[in-house]
Amino acid sequence: MEDFLDDLIAWLRIPSISALPEHANDVHAAAVFTAGLFRKAGLENVGLIEGEGHPLVVGDWLHAPGKPTILCYGHYDVQPAEPLHLWNTPPFEPTVLGDNLYARGAADDKGLAIILIKAVERLRQQGPLPVNLRFLFEGEEESGGDHVSNYLRTHPEALACDAALICDTEMFAPELPTLCVGLRGILYAELEVQTGETDLHSGVYGGAVPNAIEAAARIVSSLKDLHGRILIPGFYDDVAAPTAEELASWARLPFDAGAFQREEARVHALTGEPGFGVLERSWARPTFEIHGIRGGFTGPGAKTVIPCEATVKFSCRLAPGQDPVRVGELLNAAIEAAALPGVRTQLKILHSAKASVVDPANPYVRKAALAMTEVFGRETVLTRSGGSIPIVGLFAETLGVPSVLTGFGLPDDNLHAPNEKVYLPNIERGIEAIVRYWQSLGEAL
Amino acid sequence: MEDFLDDLIAWLRIPSISALPEHANDVHAAAVFTAGLFRKAGLENVGLIEGEGHPLVVGDWLHAPGKPTILCYGHYDVQPAEPLHLWNTPPFEPTVLGDNLYARGAADDKGLAIILIKAVERLRQQGPLPVNLRFLFEGEEESGGDHVSNYLRTHPEALACDAALICDTEMFAPELPTLCVGLRGILYAELEVQTGETDLHSGVYGGAVPNAIEAAARIVSSLKDLHGRILIPGFYDDVAAPTAEELASWARLPFDAGAFQREEARVHALTGEPGFGVLERSWARPTFEIHGIRGGFTGPGAKTVIPCEATVKFSCRLAPGQDPVRVGELLNAAIEAAALPGVRTQLKILHSAKASVVDPANPYVRKAALAMTEVFGRETVLTRSGGSIPIVGLFAETLGVPSVLTGFGLPDDNLHAPNEKVYLPNIERGIEAIVRYWQSLGEAL
Repeated sequence: MEDFLDDLIAWLRIPSISALPEHANDVHAAAVFTAGLFRKAGLENVGLIEGEGHPLVVGDWLHAPGKPTILCYGHYDVQPAEPLHLWNTPPFEPTVLGDNLYARGAADDKGLAIILIKAVERLRQQGPLPVNLRFLFEGEEESGGDHVSNYLRTHPEALACDAALICDTEMFAPELPTLCVGLRGILYAELEVQTGETDLHSGVYGGAVPNAIEAAARIVSSLKDLHGRILIPGFYDDVAAPTAEELASWARLPFDAGAFQREEARVHALTGEPGFGVLERSWARPTFEIHGIRGGFTGPGAKTVIPCEATVKFSCRLAPGQDPVRVGELLNAAIEAAALPGVRTQLKILHSAKASVVDPANPYVRKAALAMTEVFGRETVLTRSGGSIPIVGLFAETLGVPSVLTGFGLPDDNLHAPNEKVYLPNIERGIEAIVRYWQSLGEAL
Repeated sequence: MEDFLDDLIAWLRIPSISALPEHANDVHAAAVFTAGLFRKAGLENVGLIEGEGHPLVVGDWLHAPGKPTILCYGHYDVQPAEPLHLWNTPPFEPTVLGDNLYARGAADDKGLAIILIKAVERLRQQGPLPVNLRFLFEGEEESGGDHVSNYLRTHPEALACDAALICDTEMFAPELPTLCVGLRGILYAELEVQTGETDLHSGVYGGAVPNAIEAAARIVSSLKDLHGRILIPGFYDDVAAPTAEELASWARLPFDAGAFQREEARVHALTGEPGFGVLERSWARPTFEIHGIRGGFTGPGAKTVIPCEATVKFSCRLAPGQDPVRVGELLNAAIEAAALPGVRTQLKILHSAKASVVDPANPYVRKAALAMTEVFGRETVLTRSGGSIPIVGLFAETLGVPSVLTGFGLPDDNLHAPNEKVYLPNIERGIEAIVRYWQSLGEAL
């Protein structure tokens, strides 16, 4: 274990919190340290790409002619550590307790990304690599920076490859090797509702004039039925359902809805569209979720205002097949149809992305699954995620390649939360699995 | 005009903004000045009642045995003057332009309250008063302080009277003498909705868990139909309708719904319960109005949170006959019935008050209407207000007396807004009307 633990601990000591300007020097130090790990592993052409925001760290090894080229992605930045008082050990003093290593970034992403680096190191110690590799690590994943997307859009040739490989996801359950082969898309929007020119007194005018928050609440309530089915006409037209095979494989996953409700989501009840299971609802069905309603008076005490304006923030997660532009149009039409007389609406799309799915029959996915199965001694499961990992869409769009998302984290790793940890035996197994994966890719696909 | 103008201007120069702590000394100076006006008018036992908050100013004249005792109420505090850049003249440099006097407090309430003081002064210059008078002016009307209500509850005997007289309302239209004989009640509440223990990520959980803001929006939308009729079972049971005579008198008022919509309310459309006119909707019908919804994310940009908690602030204006306690119970039952599985609700009543109506046949109202008719040369109209003037309910509750609300302000006086003004000829006519009123009360009722 020594060959990765010392390096990982030193990396985790650097508080590379990309969202906080006061840690800018730490983020830069982490980039320099990352470059050092790349060099030590035996990568070539290692360097920092400086630009707006935090640097990208790149490196490559391209001496396997005729073999596939894999783009390895990771990020060296971390989330803020707050609330500090809930940590049992200091977040930037990595601490080994039993088989776990506790630190901010232990799982997201340094402790998983190091798997890719150490897999190179092991193979290079034995000689040339079985495949061509490019490495691209960024320092703005946790803060939504544009550096990596700007670089990909302007320098796609510098990252030309056959597939991307990302070590930033988790296993469905402990000991269950997992590959994520689908991500939902998203359409994030703001709805502005206006009923008049000024807020009015509810004593003088109440009963005779429209209320912008009531209008907004009524519109958004009308877009979904009581059971969670979205009522926007045409919304489901293009939704591509998972294959029967995929659904059957999800049904075989060790999933306990009661435990999910009580221990993981900690909600008073599970809800959602009738006729679909919990995993299908959250992985493969499109959604409509309200994030907040701004307007009127929400401070302490009582103020009797009839608000003339309200803004609703909401998003739709999109299923494969749905086009964000068309969904935006359908949404706008449904909102305009739901607005009562005297209610003016304006819909603003803040950002959007299509869903991403990878064909499980794709050889880059298939061989990754096989390698993980061999190392873990259990069949690799193929899952999806209900979230949207922007880099996956970006790789598809700019490089035209599929992404392989290997899960070596555990469901209880406390990502973005106090007491983040990584299960150290999984790093070792991850390195072994990646080594086997590249070796298998070096053979005929 | 000189006998009131100089005093009024001096009073208005004092920036007695009760809501702003930095003006506490000014508020106190205005109380002292008010006491001086009382003494100059010939009231006796004039003094400040200090306590928590700003002082009350009291005085009396009780030398008309066998005659009624009238409690005269006003307030010497004013609203803040912001936004200052919209004032054409400085708010605390009272400026006469033609027949109008511009200043913060010109109409609300110094310029109308002075009518009561100067009516005393004129009558006392001629000899004894025809009725007994008590004066009670407060300095927290604009900031919602408790001093006056605490005093009334603890010292009702010190304010024993037959009727209260309040100069703090406006005429329905210029040149149209107006008495307000009805005020709606209010029930102000917060609804807390909880769906789980923590906000969740809409990518990971969206589609499978409840959303507290959606639940809140759905509940409040379900309490009112698209046309404005409230759907809380039993809500309308005890509503006392205005008499046919009262409705007929409202129909004769010079009211233009189009002008009301475009120029006064400035809303895109008028709304409300079918079958009721605009005045009836806003004066005599109960309401349900949302003031704001707190929870989730409403800042700039996009955050994909499924909120686990939401708080809705709302109020019902109450019609005569409705009991706030019973309405609160009906509301709670309707909310619990509307909450879907997994949605926990808690309703908190922040404050409430019953509606107040005065019988137009009451001699204190009838004689006031007659006196105003004589001075203005037009029949006095009896209106209601959709708002709630807490002091009226307090006088009824603690002293057991009706309140006579005389309107000498004009609809365009810009209360609480820049360029507040008072129409000076109405102060003169107001003084004449109050003098006649008291004289008529001194005769047999």
